[in-house]
Amino acid sequence: MTLKRTHTCGELTAEQIGREVILNGWVGPRRDLGGVIFIDLRDRYGVTQVVFTEEDEALHEKAEHLRAEYVIGIKGKVIARGEENINSNLPTGEIEIEATDLVIYSEAETPPFEIKDGITTNDEVRLKYRYLDLRRPEVQEKLMLRSKFYQSVREFYHNLEFAEVETPVLMKSTPEGARDYLVPSRVNPGKFFALPQSPQTYKQLLMVSGYDRYFQIVKCFRDEDLRADRQPEFTQIDVEMSFVDEEDIYATHEGLMKKVFKDTIGYEVETPFPRMTYEEAMNTYGSDKPDTRFGLEFKDFSEIVKDAEFKVFSGTVKDGGAVVGITVPGQGDMGRGAIDRLTDRVKKETGAGGLIYIKMQDDGPLCSVAKFLTDEIVEQMVEKSEAEQGDLVLILAGPKPDVLKQLGQLRLMMGKDFDLIDESKYNFLWVTEFPLLEWDKETRRYHAMHHPFTSPREEDMELLDSDPAKAKARAYDLVLNGNELGGGSIRIHNSDVQSKVFELLGIGEKEAEEKFGFLLDAFKFGAPPHGGIAFGVDRAVMLLTGAKSLRDVIAFPKNQKAQSPMDEAPASVDEEQLEELHIDIRKSIKDQLS
Amino acid sequence: MTLKRTHTCGELTAEQIGREVILNGWVGPRRDLGGVIFIDLRDRYGVTQVVFTEEDEALHEKAEHLRAEYVIGIKGKVIARGEENINSNLPTGEIEIEATDLVIYSEAETPPFEIKDGITTNDEVRLKYRYLDLRRPEVQEKLMLRSKFYQSVREFYHNLEFAEVETPVLMKSTPEGARDYLVPSRVNPGKFFALPQSPQTYKQLLMVSGYDRYFQIVKCFRDEDLRADRQPEFTQIDVEMSFVDEEDIYATHEGLMKKVFKDTIGYEVETPFPRMTYEEAMNTYGSDKPDTRFGLEFKDFSEIVKDAEFKVFSGTVKDGGAVVGITVPGQGDMGRGAIDRLTDRVKKETGAGGLIYIKMQDDGPLCSVAKFLTDEIVEQMVEKSEAEQGDLVLILAGPKPDVLKQLGQLRLMMGKDFDLIDESKYNFLWVTEFPLLEWDKETRRYHAMHHPFTSPREEDMELLDSDPAKAKARAYDLVLNGNELGGGSIRIHNSDVQSKVFELLGIGEKEAEEKFGFLLDAFKFGAPPHGGIAFGVDRAVMLLTGAKSLRDVIAFPKNQKAQSPMDEAPASVDEEQLEELHIDIRKSIKDQLS
Repeated sequence: MTLKRTHTCGELTAEQIGREVILNGWVGPRRDLGGVIFIDLRDRYGVTQVVFTEEDEALHEKAEHLRAEYVIGIKGKVIARGEENINSNLPTGEIEIEATDLVIYSEAETPPFEIKDGITTNDEVRLKYRYLDLRRPEVQEKLMLRSKFYQSVREFYHNLEFAEVETPVLMKSTPEGARDYLVPSRVNPGKFFALPQSPQTYKQLLMVSGYDRYFQIVKCFRDEDLRADRQPEFTQIDVEMSFVDEEDIYATHEGLMKKVFKDTIGYEVETPFPRMTYEEAMNTYGSDKPDTRFGLEFKDFSEIVKDAEFKVFSGTVKDGGAVVGITVPGQGDMGRGAIDRLTDRVKKETGAGGLIYIKMQDDGPLCSVAKFLTDEIVEQMVEKSEAEQGDLVLILAGPKPDVLKQLGQLRLMMGKDFDLIDESKYNFLWVTEFPLLEWDKETRRYHAMHHPFTSPREEDMELLDSDPAKAKARAYDLVLNGNELGGGSIRIHNSDVQSKVFELLGIGEKEAEEKFGFLLDAFKFGAPPHGGIAFGVDRAVMLLTGAKSLRDVIAFPKNQKAQSPMDEAPASVDEEQLEELHIDIRKSIKDQLS
Repeated sequence: MTLKRTHTCGELTAEQIGREVILNGWVGPRRDLGGVIFIDLRDRYGVTQVVFTEEDEALHEKAEHLRAEYVIGIKGKVIARGEENINSNLPTGEIEIEATDLVIYSEAETPPFEIKDGITTNDEVRLKYRYLDLRRPEVQEKLMLRSKFYQSVREFYHNLEFAEVETPVLMKSTPEGARDYLVPSRVNPGKFFALPQSPQTYKQLLMVSGYDRYFQIVKCFRDEDLRADRQPEFTQIDVEMSFVDEEDIYATHEGLMKKVFKDTIGYEVETPFPRMTYEEAMNTYGSDKPDTRFGLEFKDFSEIVKDAEFKVFSGTVKDGGAVVGITVPGQGDMGRGAIDRLTDRVKKETGAGGLIYIKMQDDGPLCSVAKFLTDEIVEQMVEKSEAEQGDLVLILAGPKPDVLKQLGQLRLMMGKDFDLIDESKYNFLWVTEFPLLEWDKETRRYHAMHHPFTSPREEDMELLDSDPAKAKARAYDLVLNGNELGGGSIRIHNSDVQSKVFELLGIGEKEAEEKFGFLLDAFKFGAPPHGGIAFGVDRAVMLLTGAKSLRDVIAFPKNQKAQSPMDEAPASVDEEQLEELHIDIRKSIKDQLS
């Protein structure tokens, strides 16, 4: 290399006029005007205009070869741009460099898509040429914010004397919840490691070991069927604290959010955050992660309609279900066609059986099932709904909790459709008092709603024997604008309670011993009360950058088939490698592949 | 929990005398003296003495139940210790807490070893009960230093605007060098991911993408046969920079060492670091990671003895080998028995054929092979050796580079045996100008000495065609006290040069395309000159803490069979899991296991 930069492409201003400088970077758009060649030279830090005049013929000729994405070094003098050429949108917009030397480090073929913001290239092409996609300024901005995010988080915890500890990536398989990724062991034939779904057991052991406060930004892995917004590997902020209760976790992490939002996007987060129980969230918003940036709170009409002749209402209530609605302001004049389309969409997307409405028209409420209801009932419903003239009340009836979830989805649709969401807001919310268990109809057993290490509430311990479904957990989620940002719980720190919970989860003594014996053992040697939380880094950065997909905030993401189109991972491997690992591909697959 | 701590066990001093406080922690040694119960209460921050008098009978009785490692909360008043009981070794040594309340959070069985420093419990037991081993203060200190180390490193790079970027853990298998750990893909039957041996290709792609300066503290994986000091997963500081040459890498990372040593152990590192070429290091110290904390530099006697009648000398030189020695100060009176034992040890540990010596005795030099040499030759050797009266010259003869390595090992033995190493020193050294290739006798092909992406020196490009073995690489290692702390290189950024190097390494066009096609492609779209380095975190922390093994600075390490005795990973997995992954354990192994 012969031209070592003195400055980046983002830092020269009028202050440096007259100075001789060297810049390195990528060639952007080039313009030839009356024999003078202008190029935009780009690096991560910005863009600077470089000018090649006709004065130095050899240099000019060399500059004529420059094409987009060539990597070059230039030497030259910082000069002021003419008044009319000043670009006030650019930090370097007052100056340009009159080049006196040029080195081409690397030529470039024409890229498959332009290196600029706002391209519409499809995702697979962008993933195949991810190294070019990563070159686009809007992608770089997101990843640079992510870089800042990491350090802001870590500063926060280190300032509070949290111990940063790395936990193993090669651990034991304990399939619970999601599927494990497995890693065959060569040295231990027939045995497998698993990649962590989370470092849960390790961080609890660290508390038993007296590390007091632990944090780590750590990769986790879940071999799940990939929905639009999932990745096989994801990053979480993992935290555990000893001698704490919920209040300590809340206060600490409100502080974290305050710092991170300030450091990354300059937003002042207000604390403390509001709190809502799981029950209230479900009954009011039909979601355990309600978006509280807009209203449309649920109104429960069950009591009003329980004796109505209309069986869809009264029958539902009698069977333990609910009749609930939301009031959409100003949509009382929605036409028949629009309502029909909405009804179809609700049925399709939420699984609801139908949609009932009351239009608050000038001449009084118009209810879609008026003929089955008394005027009195409609009136009471209107009153309950707090609907005003011109509003639209949308009503669903069905078994709980399904109907609440369906109405929750309808609420979100309405919020989006009618622009009810204030996008400038960051609404944080602690959701608390989750049920300890949830019944899985399919497997006919309880699952841990959070995870098997979550402590029941002290006052609910008895319920574990008498009515476990009613027991509430010391679990909490942090919700931001309708997204689950993180969640955690106060843990069980007593091996007897832990064994009892395992039992409720259908994990027998032998299985518990096999899978988690070391944790149960550890609790026998003096375990402090402890609790923790984990936050999804990918999601948090997505929300901070306004990205539309997790893929946009991950440097090298996988596609929806868990593949990397760039390097074609996963790939076939040599027979030798498999032999060394004592495994074989199943014959049916081999036959298909060959 | 009812007693929420107001202070940690490490912070109370005479300043708080009279204050009511609450502490939480683990019960250490308990002493009952004349009805008064004393306990040491311990947490990560320190130890505080707690006193239970007989005044409150109920409390005293409760305290009588306390045993080692119980986890408790106590409330009490900070009082001054009697003059005679002040412990000036302890930050809290001037005070004690007179307890007024006690909560036992958790009882404890007697641990399998004492929770204190300097235990001699064997490694397997310590690993099985790792959560207890981690509780010992000397282990906690090391891991807390490691925690500080991480953040010091990150502050350094973030201050310099490096982009912190996470690279995938699930990547493509490109077996080169060490064995990959493989991860079968469920969604892509018959295909496998590999865990990264290093994020090498990704960090180079990030340079192609214009990230300019990248760093990451990242887990890497190598499925190698485990020597005493290896772990299947290890942590590295991974760095790459664009538009740089060796000088930028050196200067930047001398700064890193300065900051990290200051932040973690308060040591002032002097910069710049000395440099030595690979050739000089091998010829002077018989190692590419010389410990320069002591002398015993090699003396080459080959020229002096090349015509000696003694065939062991002259024959060796004639065959291109060398006769080299070191001068051990003050050991000229080593007895026959000691010399014989040393000779046996040298033969056994280094593989040398024999050991020749010259003792610098009062009555002149005594050479072990004097009868085969002229006095003149011995005299010249003595002169060359710079030995003085009382010194011992140890000489090896043999083919190069074997004999140099053997003498290098002998030098280290002597350094340790005779306490020639100043343990208070931190001697950094850049080793430079490594050969690009090394010849592998077994596979009869070249291997990349650093890795296949390392750039040859500009002036050696021609040698790639004419005499590749002579080509030097733009590679460098940072050595500290005889340990390789890190290494890196300026990379190839041109697909033609890269293809040529692949060819030299016996990686055919098809194979190169299959394995690294995406990198070669990326280089075609404008690649900046770039280079980088990686440092071993485990080793660095080991050196900083004076730990004797990597295992001592890793929270949950594996043993030498790559197993975790604590949770018994790796373990057997369910047949269902294997079926989902389309793999099977080979029949021979299954038969053994069943």
